[in-house]
Amino acid sequence: MAETDQAPPPSDQLAALNLTDTVEKHAFSDRVLIRSIVGRPDGGAGLAGQRVRAGGWVKTGREQGKGTFAFLELNDGSSPANLQVIVDAGLAVLSKLVATGTCVVVDGILKVPPEGTRQKIELRVEKVVSLGEVDPAKYPIPKTKLTLEFLRDHLHLRARTNTIAAIARIRNALAFATHSFFQEHNFLYVHTPILTTSDCEGAGEMFQVTTLISESEKLEKELIKNPPPSEVDIEAARQVVSERGEAVKQLKAAKASKSEITASVAELNKAKENLSKLEERSKLKPGIPKKDGKIDYTQDFFARQAFLTVSGQLQVETYACAVSNVYTFGPTFRAEHSHTSRHLAEFWMVEPEIAFADLQDDMNCAEAYVKYMCNWLLDKCLDDMQFMAKSYDKGCIDRLRMVASIPFVRISYTEAVELLEEAVKGGKKFENEVKWGIDLASEHERYLTEVKFQKPVIVYNYPKGIKAFYMRLNDDLKTVAAMDVLVPKVGELIGGSQREERYEVIRERILEVGLPLEPYEWYLDLRRYGTVKHCGFGLGFERMVLFATGIENIRDVIPFPRYPGRADL
Amino acid sequence: MAETDQAPPPSDQLAALNLTDTVEKHAFSDRVLIRSIVGRPDGGAGLAGQRVRAGGWVKTGREQGKGTFAFLELNDGSSPANLQVIVDAGLAVLSKLVATGTCVVVDGILKVPPEGTRQKIELRVEKVVSLGEVDPAKYPIPKTKLTLEFLRDHLHLRARTNTIAAIARIRNALAFATHSFFQEHNFLYVHTPILTTSDCEGAGEMFQVTTLISESEKLEKELIKNPPPSEVDIEAARQVVSERGEAVKQLKAAKASKSEITASVAELNKAKENLSKLEERSKLKPGIPKKDGKIDYTQDFFARQAFLTVSGQLQVETYACAVSNVYTFGPTFRAEHSHTSRHLAEFWMVEPEIAFADLQDDMNCAEAYVKYMCNWLLDKCLDDMQFMAKSYDKGCIDRLRMVASIPFVRISYTEAVELLEEAVKGGKKFENEVKWGIDLASEHERYLTEVKFQKPVIVYNYPKGIKAFYMRLNDDLKTVAAMDVLVPKVGELIGGSQREERYEVIRERILEVGLPLEPYEWYLDLRRYGTVKHCGFGLGFERMVLFATGIENIRDVIPFPRYPGRADL
Repeated sequence: MAETDQAPPPSDQLAALNLTDTVEKHAFSDRVLIRSIVGRPDGGAGLAGQRVRAGGWVKTGREQGKGTFAFLELNDGSSPANLQVIVDAGLAVLSKLVATGTCVVVDGILKVPPEGTRQKIELRVEKVVSLGEVDPAKYPIPKTKLTLEFLRDHLHLRARTNTIAAIARIRNALAFATHSFFQEHNFLYVHTPILTTSDCEGAGEMFQVTTLISESEKLEKELIKNPPPSEVDIEAARQVVSERGEAVKQLKAAKASKSEITASVAELNKAKENLSKLEERSKLKPGIPKKDGKIDYTQDFFARQAFLTVSGQLQVETYACAVSNVYTFGPTFRAEHSHTSRHLAEFWMVEPEIAFADLQDDMNCAEAYVKYMCNWLLDKCLDDMQFMAKSYDKGCIDRLRMVASIPFVRISYTEAVELLEEAVKGGKKFENEVKWGIDLASEHERYLTEVKFQKPVIVYNYPKGIKAFYMRLNDDLKTVAAMDVLVPKVGELIGGSQREERYEVIRERILEVGLPLEPYEWYLDLRRYGTVKHCGFGLGFERMVLFATGIENIRDVIPFPRYPGRADL
Repeated sequence: MAETDQAPPPSDQLAALNLTDTVEKHAFSDRVLIRSIVGRPDGGAGLAGQRVRAGGWVKTGREQGKGTFAFLELNDGSSPANLQVIVDAGLAVLSKLVATGTCVVVDGILKVPPEGTRQKIELRVEKVVSLGEVDPAKYPIPKTKLTLEFLRDHLHLRARTNTIAAIARIRNALAFATHSFFQEHNFLYVHTPILTTSDCEGAGEMFQVTTLISESEKLEKELIKNPPPSEVDIEAARQVVSERGEAVKQLKAAKASKSEITASVAELNKAKENLSKLEERSKLKPGIPKKDGKIDYTQDFFARQAFLTVSGQLQVETYACAVSNVYTFGPTFRAEHSHTSRHLAEFWMVEPEIAFADLQDDMNCAEAYVKYMCNWLLDKCLDDMQFMAKSYDKGCIDRLRMVASIPFVRISYTEAVELLEEAVKGGKKFENEVKWGIDLASEHERYLTEVKFQKPVIVYNYPKGIKAFYMRLNDDLKTVAAMDVLVPKVGELIGGSQREERYEVIRERILEVGLPLEPYEWYLDLRRYGTVKHCGFGLGFERMVLFATGIENIRDVIPFPRYPGRADL
């Protein structure tokens, strides 16, 4: 698309220009992509005269000229910008078109509007092709300004608002940027499992997955419809078996005909079969199957207790220790009863894992990845970012530019604690005490990145006591090769580490933190056989969307938020 | 990389060539990408003389020249090709290097090997930088030829085999091709929920997700450690409260000092608090909470029964009906007790949804997407495809070429049944009877695509009785606008439909199939307010990997297969 093509092009270039100036269509549909009209540098003016079909939803509409025509602001989700559409009264019942949320498909001609209007192009409708009406009295989200909290009660319609649609486009861009970054750097995307039987860091906060309840309920229903046999029923059936057996014996003794005996044996077998069926059914008990007073998980779907994953890291390490550079990007789960604006029960994580690499490489990768995402949004989502800046967070574009361009500060945990102690001496008040050995609280992290440095900060080499067993023990034997990336607005965005690759050391560490070895034998095998120096990190994807958009509540940056008491749709 | 650069370049072009001929490194690591050496058109010969660091795992190794040096075939997962490495005995204990699975990092110089060898380049080691040993007597997968079935018992190590690594690269390529295709066509990637409370097509085959069991177990343990109070304990506590109350009364009557009364009131309050705690604890009952004989799901994490999703379609429709073109790509679940080579309990689905589009558009999109993936593999994964062709399925590359280039056959269900009936007349035997109204069985689908047409076939307009309520009713009132894409090797690869967008019709259909309306009110809202013609489909991602690789069992094309009785790691 040309930067300035409002002046009519020289006639000898007309044929060439017509090619690039053709309106882009939606794939697999006959309507135009509204972004390809109003998102042009010339606002669409260069397309005047073209005949197009447009489809979308009415953002706002109003009848004008005493009901002789209507203005519609039409949006198809391709960008935050609307196409202005003008429909004459002869073409449709205008009152049916103007309600917010109405879906219309129209054919018309693009025209340059009169001087003095904001739009550079508008669509003069020749035909209303189809119409999905809205009764504004009943439509749950008829107004254009609704609180994000209100919209959470209307998950199925909230993507029709400007805000949720813009977040959806930004989230989409960040997801594709993630794949593009890792693919460009030769990482393989590995689908780690959602269902897991390795309850790595304690099953306390894990969701259990089971078919025992539904199967016991099915059985219960069945037993009500068709009650199990009583002891009397079974005794009676036993009696029949013994009588039939007696009959066979007598026939044989009496040397009866072969056919008579065969018939009698058949009767006996039928009676035996009936008895064994009754005995089988009499064992059926409603309720979840138990053994020795405990739930009998051998009868569950996977023949053992199963949970939803809290991280794909341990599993993805099996691939890193085979094909070098890998990443996973998928849903993870925490059954935490926290009602904060930063926690979800279901959220998406990006977890790369790099073989033949140490903590420095890990930090380099994390920094490059975050910068890549920021540049991607500035490149490809500027219109949506401008919408977020205007509506929610004035500084969000500057923040992206800053993070994309400035080298991240890197300080050790020990230095970080010293800086926090200095701040306390200087009068800064924290709710949580600062001293070497504490886990940095959110307020400490925010202070470092937002106040002290005012840019992204990587803190590395944490005390081993506050970190997981798989992080590599440093030579000081006090700290581990862990790192957290802190960014303004959200604090901790990434947590990672070099992994302990030494068999004896990691075995000791598992025991030291009080975990059993048996569930980790497979993980130890990676160190027993062809062990390799490796590292990785996890990025909370919703945190990245919060960071980019400036939105305050994590429930608004995921399409279908799940939290205690709520899992709509 | 130049096509032919085995001849030494003219000296004036040397500087320029050196740039492109630099060995590519792994991102965020100091070692080279082995693919960038041996994957070159010249087999790496043009890189002779370069000093590099290489890291990887030994595929095969052998000592030679009476133990004076060793040959190692080194692989880093970047491609199926190995780098030949030669280590002299002076540099390391050779017996520690040659075991399959050993991890080594070496520095050395790339050299052209003697005439007559298969390799075009080899690495002469100058230094062994690091070593992750393997005890071949203990290594679970020391041999190079192991059955895929055997490898399923060693999920954590199987990616170290050529086959599973090649499948991982092909799977990765198909995943990125998927994102690239939909992003290029302006679809937004939407993360539909994994946890769902909409049990759309019957909860029978769904996994339940709950915290009730773990919470009841936690409580049970707590009550054993700290038993609930008995009625006697509570009565005693009540007695204390009444005594303390009496004491306060008496002090007040006696006009005791304020401090005396205050102290006495404090004692009373403490006693009251103790009583209420005991009463609270006495209500605790072990076991899953029940109400009216049924499990009380109001006490579950989401305050209602929750399941793992079987499809993101209904939810992604809420985004299609707001921002036009969307897709989801995520894990889905079926709690089916099927032990076939085509079923998993956890598998990945790609589900696009297109607004302003009908069944024709849906078929066009499905065909374009499948072709795009085939071309992608031919372009970017030919080395891995050649490995699959050599080792598993001679025809797999030809199949990709055929599907990428030939227009898919499109026939109505009615035509398909006629063709099958003709086949039966001609002597073809099917296990399942053929007549109008049946759901096509796998044998029918395979016959159409593999025998009759020998190319992909799209069957459309199925009888409404065998299809879901949300598929659009055709004007004949007997069929719905559904379509299945059948391909050689796997049969059904894609199932899709135009969705019923007419409120009255879909409401009727829900009732007709015997479902309650209430859980679908949100889905009906999409038709009530600004309804739009739309369509979509689902592609079983593992089926696509089976189709591409020619592998027989679906458990081998997903990194961590889950099926009845098994969910390792």
